[in-house]
Amino acid sequence: MNLLKQAITEKGKVLSDEVLKVDAFLNHQLDPELMQQIGKEFADLYKDAGITKILTIESSGIAPAIMAGLELGVPVVFARKRKSLTLVDSLLTANIHSFTKNETNEISVSNDYLQENDTVLIIDDFLANGQAVRGLLNIVEKANATLAGVGIVIEKGFQAGGDLLREQGVRVESLAIIDSMSENKITFREEF
Amino acid sequence: MNLLKQAITEKGKVLSDEVLKVDAFLNHQLDPELMQQIGKEFADLYKDAGITKILTIESSGIAPAIMAGLELGVPVVFARKRKSLTLVDSLLTANIHSFTKNETNEISVSNDYLQENDTVLIIDDFLANGQAVRGLLNIVEKANATLAGVGIVIEKGFQAGGDLLREQGVRVESLAIIDSMSENKITFREEF
Repeated sequence: MNLLKQAITEKGKVLSDEVLKVDAFLNHQLDPELMQQIGKEFADLYKDAGITKILTIESSGIAPAIMAGLELGVPVVFARKRKSLTLVDSLLTANIHSFTKNETNEISVSNDYLQENDTVLIIDDFLANGQAVRGLLNIVEKANATLAGVGIVIEKGFQAGGDLLREQGVRVESLAIIDSMSENKITFREEF
Repeated sequence: MNLLKQAITEKGKVLSDEVLKVDAFLNHQLDPELMQQIGKEFADLYKDAGITKILTIESSGIAPAIMAGLELGVPVVFARKRKSLTLVDSLLTANIHSFTKNETNEISVSNDYLQENDTVLIIDDFLANGQAVRGLLNIVEKANATLAGVGIVIEKGFQAGGDLLREQGVRVESLAIIDSMSENKITFREEF
């Protein structure tokens, strides 16, 4: 997705060979028009997949997910990292470890909003080692729902998460895959 | 906003005289079309206010804020409740106490994304005692930015936050104000 790659190149900050900061448009400040285009792209990729629900995780997954939900005409559920006092339903839970934050979180989704007749598209902002996506997959399994696939805004192709998921037969669509980066240059995987 | 009041009446769950659960469309599962209508309503209310930036707080403020940002054509910044390892900029911070979660959080916004030439619309999902909005107001002040006003999806009119802010001269626009609630009946404040 060229508009996204342009935003990454122009507004992303490479903090190290492994850390890309996209706070200018995706993780802290949000570019609503770019989010809309991203939502349209996900909707186009999964338009024939019979999606009934989008599952994402707070906080940075919410903006791309809500835009995809608007295009596909389906509700969005975001997994919570902390339990709310008013979230009193039966919960589907999974543990995920964040290497950037160096902590393990239990994420949870109410089983009121994810059920076995759902066909689910998982959306997240980043895919690196795949921990967050695996946690969400785990929740889809626990709900006995059907997984249609995964939609990622930015995949770090130099980390194993995306390719491991694909090898296991999971459909993973990433709108930009970064194969390497340094202070001077971000190299995207070519699309075929 | 009638569509919103209808959603609250039909899908909201009153857990006590003070606690309303709207996980079905606003706080856990999101209704993208309703979020779009909410965004349009905020944009309409503030269309002549010269807004250059929307400020909200993770996580439930993000969906209404991004839709308002799309309509107004301005970026959205969400305040973080926890510091990210990749958020290395100078931070504007404020403390807010959540009575529902019974904890105090330091919220932060990078001063890269909120500056003195900004005219800011603050958006949040709920307004009760006003702690979150006051924290965001504090951050707008620290940035030396101009406050245009506040946009709230659901105000608990039986708690003092909204009226105290209005008495202090802050423009507060709430799309639904609940004056009282019990298991059988939610009473909305009449619009004039």
